[in-house]
Amino acid sequence: MPPHPLDLDLPKHVDAALAGYLADRKTKGARTEENFAGVVDALADFVLGGGKRVRPTFAWWGWRAAGGDPDGDQAGAVLTAVSSLELIQACALIHDDLMDASETRRGMPTVHVRFADKHREQGWLGEPERFGLAASVLIGDIALAWADDMLFAAGLPTDALQRLSIPWRDMRTEMLAGQYLDVLTQARGDASPDAALRIDRLKTAAYTVERPLHMGAAIGGGSAELVDGLRSFGTDIGVAFQLRDDLLGVFGDPAVTGKPAGDDLREGKRTLLVALGMEFGADVLHDALGRPDLDVATVDVVRAKLVEVGAVDAVEERIAELTESALTALDRAPIVEPAARDRLAQLAVSATKRTS
Amino acid sequence: MPPHPLDLDLPKHVDAALAGYLADRKTKGARTEENFAGVVDALADFVLGGGKRVRPTFAWWGWRAAGGDPDGDQAGAVLTAVSSLELIQACALIHDDLMDASETRRGMPTVHVRFADKHREQGWLGEPERFGLAASVLIGDIALAWADDMLFAAGLPTDALQRLSIPWRDMRTEMLAGQYLDVLTQARGDASPDAALRIDRLKTAAYTVERPLHMGAAIGGGSAELVDGLRSFGTDIGVAFQLRDDLLGVFGDPAVTGKPAGDDLREGKRTLLVALGMEFGADVLHDALGRPDLDVATVDVVRAKLVEVGAVDAVEERIAELTESALTALDRAPIVEPAARDRLAQLAVSATKRTS
Repeated sequence: MPPHPLDLDLPKHVDAALAGYLADRKTKGARTEENFAGVVDALADFVLGGGKRVRPTFAWWGWRAAGGDPDGDQAGAVLTAVSSLELIQACALIHDDLMDASETRRGMPTVHVRFADKHREQGWLGEPERFGLAASVLIGDIALAWADDMLFAAGLPTDALQRLSIPWRDMRTEMLAGQYLDVLTQARGDASPDAALRIDRLKTAAYTVERPLHMGAAIGGGSAELVDGLRSFGTDIGVAFQLRDDLLGVFGDPAVTGKPAGDDLREGKRTLLVALGMEFGADVLHDALGRPDLDVATVDVVRAKLVEVGAVDAVEERIAELTESALTALDRAPIVEPAARDRLAQLAVSATKRTS
Repeated sequence: MPPHPLDLDLPKHVDAALAGYLADRKTKGARTEENFAGVVDALADFVLGGGKRVRPTFAWWGWRAAGGDPDGDQAGAVLTAVSSLELIQACALIHDDLMDASETRRGMPTVHVRFADKHREQGWLGEPERFGLAASVLIGDIALAWADDMLFAAGLPTDALQRLSIPWRDMRTEMLAGQYLDVLTQARGDASPDAALRIDRLKTAAYTVERPLHMGAAIGGGSAELVDGLRSFGTDIGVAFQLRDDLLGVFGDPAVTGKPAGDDLREGKRTLLVALGMEFGADVLHDALGRPDLDVATVDVVRAKLVEVGAVDAVEERIAELTESALTALDRAPIVEPAARDRLAQLAVSATKRTS
């Protein structure tokens, strides 16, 4: 049987759901306050400007795993509900870019830069940077509020909404707690493997994989065993996904990742890879980490050292273990729809073996 | 009949509900991530550190107006639900303080300053101000997310939750749209009375009075006529409340308001009072507005000019008209509980005639 069109082209359908929702908000928002249209445009450009739709994808397959039928009455509502996760992600990224003072994302100016530029062009009063800060704080807040609005107006039945509200709410707090822990860990210069793993569990595993799966399964009315199995799978795959990301941040091919070689080193990210490197005596890291002007030759030296001391092997081993335990959990989970088992196994492998 | 204890000491009960909720989140949060306790403490100190509980009060009386019984089974859940409005307000104020770079609120350091100070004391890595920015963005986000969590876990029946979700969601967007419009209006230097009134309608009328009343009435299952009547009352009283605030910001007695005389002038606030002052030819405003070093003598000159050109009379007249139309709407509204009518009339008068 060929795959269902919704299963096959999910990111495209998520984009369409988001575009439709934001267009509707723009029309309605203009009735409340005409100047609000600029805010909705900025949010729409950001949300529709890219992204792999990872969270909606896991949520969708959590629902399919619980027996959700893409030809059934609820499929449209579920698609809208899972798409709302991208608005939470928009809040996370817009606020993250502000906190990190990042200038660009996906090749476009970040939201705070866009509004500061607008202020400068128009010759408005006050400091452009302060205006950019205010606009990006508020647009992130709006994305967080609208994620909720989009989810609860998706048209899901009340019992499904009630079930999903638990993972939905826990996920938000886990994401924000993870962000805070990340900021705090950087500030403290805490280079321990334990701190790195705790951030990975909250920011990536819980927020990106485990809770979206949980949410999807909850919408579909999955059994407690199914929910437990998917969450266990999600936690392990989520951490493995982040560890692969950490390796790519240092070893990734710029032609494939789209980021300069060794960019994570320049940013001073405290990853498990870096933490283990330090623990194993790769002292060159102390000088290299967080140096914006780090040259390619030094990146190469750091890379060689990370390999030499065994940090790379240790992380690869951890990824392999986590992937194996995740696949075992998936295997044991009482998944209703076989296509979901196959697709989740594929996602697990592609998330942990990817090169970009 | 003496007033019910809940009606009488509502702010105290709101404080207790918030304290209980945040203590519970701290316990549960510590299980997720021990370092999160510092975040919950900062939020709790902020939320419990003051405030008149205006929004919970209007929401409570909206519920009472629809016949809600303070001795009934649902009273505790309603109290929790209306208290959650203070967490939205915490988000609004924490983010507002960051956007305005305010150093203190209610005599305490603002959240971004508190975390920057902590960073400095601990000698952490990076810039203290950047850490303060990140922490205050995230704590505001958490407050916004938890407002929702607190509301939906309050224990209200499903049908009440469904009814209140409309005003709840509209209110969040109105608040954020109002904040953005305020920032934009300041940047543009738009000094028109129309811009000032639009901000007042969104930020104060809708967010502070109309929607809380609407929400309370929705919880209580009030009729469409009751909801319309209360909203109409709330819109007018809300704008009148803001106009009184504007007058106090220029003419208020520092001993009563707790703020330096003419502080709104120093901050350059674009109020209706200022807009009318400019329209009526009080040119001295152009020099005085937004000057942080404005002395008391010049404040006196501006005050005299605002009186002389008739701006003060115009604003007083507007307050009187709005209060009258609000009280007429209240009079006509099919309020179930007579005590609610009396209390709302009292609140209307005290909000528009107050001196602090």
